[in-house]
Amino acid sequence: MTLNAPGFVVIEGLEGAGKSTAVARVRAFLESRGATVVQTREPGGTPLAERMRELVKNVHDEPLTPQAELLLMYAARVQLVENVIKPALAAGNWVVGDRHDLSSRAYQGGGRQLGNALIDSIRQVVLGDFKPVLTLYLDIDPKLGLERAKARGELDRIELEQLAFFERTRARYLALASEDPSIVTIDAGQELALVHQAIDKALADFLERH
Amino acid sequence: MTLNAPGFVVIEGLEGAGKSTAVARVRAFLESRGATVVQTREPGGTPLAERMRELVKNVHDEPLTPQAELLLMYAARVQLVENVIKPALAAGNWVVGDRHDLSSRAYQGGGRQLGNALIDSIRQVVLGDFKPVLTLYLDIDPKLGLERAKARGELDRIELEQLAFFERTRARYLALASEDPSIVTIDAGQELALVHQAIDKALADFLERH
Repeated sequence: MTLNAPGFVVIEGLEGAGKSTAVARVRAFLESRGATVVQTREPGGTPLAERMRELVKNVHDEPLTPQAELLLMYAARVQLVENVIKPALAAGNWVVGDRHDLSSRAYQGGGRQLGNALIDSIRQVVLGDFKPVLTLYLDIDPKLGLERAKARGELDRIELEQLAFFERTRARYLALASEDPSIVTIDAGQELALVHQAIDKALADFLERH
Repeated sequence: MTLNAPGFVVIEGLEGAGKSTAVARVRAFLESRGATVVQTREPGGTPLAERMRELVKNVHDEPLTPQAELLLMYAARVQLVENVIKPALAAGNWVVGDRHDLSSRAYQGGGRQLGNALIDSIRQVVLGDFKPVLTLYLDIDPKLGLERAKARGELDRIELEQLAFFERTRARYLALASEDPSIVTIDAGQELALVHQAIDKALADFLERH
């Protein structure tokens, strides 16, 4: 199997779903086939976007409104897309992203219940036709995911939300994945070796078609 | 003349139009009639919004995209409206603002030529029905305004734009003012005493009707 034109592959999922491990797996898979890979994370990934990330992730004395949270997520995203992802792809690299647009649609749209009309109009202007060639959504029960995230250390501002928030977020992830053939849902509750097998299979199937 | 329910009064205009002096004049006018006044500036005016202001106003190594600039402006605005302006009004204060939403419509819509559909949909969700009771737009020829701003010291990232940018911004200001009776256009090119007279008259006329 050879790699054709490089693409943007994204790992998505709730806290504790195993995104970091999956990013490393995808990266290793692509590199083993000769790709050069640029890795990104969202929100963040550029100097300005990382400063926006701090505003979104840290707990502040002043409450961050849900609308400001959404706008900051997309401000950080457009910086990353224009200044990092598009140039990397144009230079022939693959890009592997820890979160992207689907996170905003699931967390801010599903979790925070902000209107889809707003999110869609921002997405349209900020991203236009740009989208990942493949998204691997690591699906996990929020209870299990949050247990794992807690075991890992202190929770950030968003991770401190109540369980119902994450249940709405997961439901939106699943609904969006069911509508878009470029999103592959992987059961992240199973043992790690099986998750890795599922990731490898999704990548192999994708490259077959790509 | 007595003051009824407090309102949000905004001063708008290009760099060098004399906004700071006008804010002080409006504030003095309202206070002389017994109002307590909370003063704001945009972008900024809350701890988080001031951090967004730095991202927008400072010159960075990484270029700030026009879209991210717009999103940051509205993220800062929603923080200010929800955490400062609405609570101040609810507590019975008048609020006098150095810039507000009209700036984004003029600078990002007119100057940067971002689409009105995007700006309007963000405004709708971020601001809803909230708007100033009165806006004083200080109209000035950009050449004169920029000369004054330069004489004042170093220019910020937005003030470093070319003249054509400010001409588009001014044209949009004038067009928006012509459509909205709550926006009063004041000739800021005339001598200061006349500007102050015009401000006092606009306020007195407004309070008459208010």
